[in-house]
Amino acid sequence: MKNCIVAQSGGPTSAINASLAGIIRGVLEHPDYDRIYGALNGITGILEKRFLDLTDDFQKEENLDLLKVTPAMYLGSCRYKLPNVKEDITPYEFIFKVFESLNIGAFFYIGGNDSMDTVDKLSAYAASIDSPVRIIGIPKTIDNDLCVTDHTPGFGSAAKYVASSMLEIFHDVAIYNLKSVTIVEIMGRDAGWLTASSILARNEYCAAPHLVYLPEAPFDTENFLTDVNQMLQEYDNVIVAVSEGIRDKDGNYISASSDAVDHFGHSRLSGAGKALEYLLEDRMSTIRVRSIELNVLQRCSSHISSRTDLDESYQQGLHGVSLAAEGKTGLMVTLKRISNEPYKVVCDSAPVCEIANQVKSVPAEFINEQGNDVLPGILPYLKPLIQGESGVNFSKGIPTYLPIPHLL
Amino acid sequence: MKNCIVAQSGGPTSAINASLAGIIRGVLEHPDYDRIYGALNGITGILEKRFLDLTDDFQKEENLDLLKVTPAMYLGSCRYKLPNVKEDITPYEFIFKVFESLNIGAFFYIGGNDSMDTVDKLSAYAASIDSPVRIIGIPKTIDNDLCVTDHTPGFGSAAKYVASSMLEIFHDVAIYNLKSVTIVEIMGRDAGWLTASSILARNEYCAAPHLVYLPEAPFDTENFLTDVNQMLQEYDNVIVAVSEGIRDKDGNYISASSDAVDHFGHSRLSGAGKALEYLLEDRMSTIRVRSIELNVLQRCSSHISSRTDLDESYQQGLHGVSLAAEGKTGLMVTLKRISNEPYKVVCDSAPVCEIANQVKSVPAEFINEQGNDVLPGILPYLKPLIQGESGVNFSKGIPTYLPIPHLL
Repeated sequence: MKNCIVAQSGGPTSAINASLAGIIRGVLEHPDYDRIYGALNGITGILEKRFLDLTDDFQKEENLDLLKVTPAMYLGSCRYKLPNVKEDITPYEFIFKVFESLNIGAFFYIGGNDSMDTVDKLSAYAASIDSPVRIIGIPKTIDNDLCVTDHTPGFGSAAKYVASSMLEIFHDVAIYNLKSVTIVEIMGRDAGWLTASSILARNEYCAAPHLVYLPEAPFDTENFLTDVNQMLQEYDNVIVAVSEGIRDKDGNYISASSDAVDHFGHSRLSGAGKALEYLLEDRMSTIRVRSIELNVLQRCSSHISSRTDLDESYQQGLHGVSLAAEGKTGLMVTLKRISNEPYKVVCDSAPVCEIANQVKSVPAEFINEQGNDVLPGILPYLKPLIQGESGVNFSKGIPTYLPIPHLL
Repeated sequence: MKNCIVAQSGGPTSAINASLAGIIRGVLEHPDYDRIYGALNGITGILEKRFLDLTDDFQKEENLDLLKVTPAMYLGSCRYKLPNVKEDITPYEFIFKVFESLNIGAFFYIGGNDSMDTVDKLSAYAASIDSPVRIIGIPKTIDNDLCVTDHTPGFGSAAKYVASSMLEIFHDVAIYNLKSVTIVEIMGRDAGWLTASSILARNEYCAAPHLVYLPEAPFDTENFLTDVNQMLQEYDNVIVAVSEGIRDKDGNYISASSDAVDHFGHSRLSGAGKALEYLLEDRMSTIRVRSIELNVLQRCSSHISSRTDLDESYQQGLHGVSLAAEGKTGLMVTLKRISNEPYKVVCDSAPVCEIANQVKSVPAEFINEQGNDVLPGILPYLKPLIQGESGVNFSKGIPTYLPIPHLL
């Protein structure tokens, strides 16, 4: 019987531990596998031989359930990228020696784009040395920017947070009988999926967000001022959803265009939201302007994560174990959507080399001609992903999560 | 039979509509009262004769239940302060003429400090003209800075949000194996109650917030740098909770001390959190620093409001109606705490002139000597206020709230 090892990498999401829970459960239940180790802080935990043996702790169903709803990485994370094997073979040799010493049959890496690059490199190396160790990638990213798969674990929960927050911010700003503009800056790096999901807040009384700017459409400052002015004719309190990664037609980030020099004499990069707030204050001085950065809470507010997202993330972890047990390697688990109504997806997989280092953007067909809104055509895609509640338990008034092991 | 009128004022909270629901229910059930009108945008709605008749819509229990959990002001708000009656009697005469035309027996004003000033002035004027109209104030403010009452409606929900967010941010920042400082800026104006409530996040594995700075203790930049350095010896990822209103020993806001000049040549006021982020980046350049402004979501995230807060806010609305019906006037409803374990409070009242234009600060006994932490002695006071969940329903993946009437 072989053992397995799992690690997590990249930025946090509310669902990355659900995938970890799926992998642990998959290994514990599979007759070919014995123990499941967790490497701390991603691949660097293997390079530094820092492991946890997860086997015994997670025999308890309640621990697995708690892990499933706990935000961020239970095992910690890293931002380490393996060197090209031709330039430096040392880490590869070390990693596979560690695998051998722990009698590892499969390594599961849960992460985003960079982590899939690691899966790609390790599986190629394994093939080159005829290693029997299976290397499987499990996706995660709130940015939803991985190719081939229908959507990524963590995105649905972040989208649910963004849409719910947008509705709550709308209630908050609607109270005063004056003209105002509120800019909400949303994560997603160079992909606009998460910002696009803010339109899920729209309903019979809530027209917010009134304007939506994604990185996929070039941002023009003068057009933006015209857009805001037009919206202010129609609405008292205009809310603008803006991606952190919006750029002008030359590809320059809008955030960078409004550097401020602080009293230390340093140039400070403000975010896109702050940059637009300053612009409006400068050019439309009679209007009350505020910017809100949703910040890390959009990726770690597990108390409002999407049940659909958590369940799918768990399933993808389970599926990864099946793939490895079948002898597959160099694959990333994917989701294939069968239908929107009723919503149905199945787990599938694709060679990780088709996925790593590429970005899936919001298609042009979902963005209006002026580049200041998302079209309703995107809704059938987005809606199913935020359905269902996390079921997080509260103890003494705040959410109950699984303790971070190295802090106990 | 007389009618009643109600209005809401000041900044939003998650519980201010629960008080409105209590008042509506109180009026509908009281044999002496007939219709209940809502003035839009606070006292300005009376001055501009903009009303809603709430009587029929809220006969339905389900509408009242939905109102109770809906964030911000159902009736809208204002920041209008009545002039001194000796300087300008016009608005007073106008308001009481409106009251007469609507056959008003009582006016309920839900709001913070400024709104209690309005209640004070209107009740004094009513007495001076022998008007039978009763004027009652119902408190609300996430700042918890009103005198006489044990705590204010809206505070418990905001405290629950702050503590829960602190725990989730802790999970988020704990993932990397490096040294970092995260500054979380929390509302509360010149009172530190809300920032203090962030210590409710502490548990067996979460020592965050590691440092806490309230407006009640003078803030010293050099001491702050020493504090952070010391904490970084003990913890990898240090989280600092800081009030928006911290000041130095001369009373200058810390936020103002780091004005930045933007590329328009304007001086920009950054918040306290940003100011400390810049300071740390400047003086401790090897550490990864981030600041998070919890922003308006700490006052409008009704999906995570405190059931205790909602229920008490509702009770205080009901109690206000009883007071008016008994012929009382010029009072604000208060809460009196009977015991912590079991937690028990009763509604009471106090002359609004004892409350208006004063501020209740966090007592020195709850702040440590160095002024960088809150002492556990505050916990028995805070804990009961965040207990219980809102029970907000979700529809299509996002929270269901009562539509804003003028936007339908």
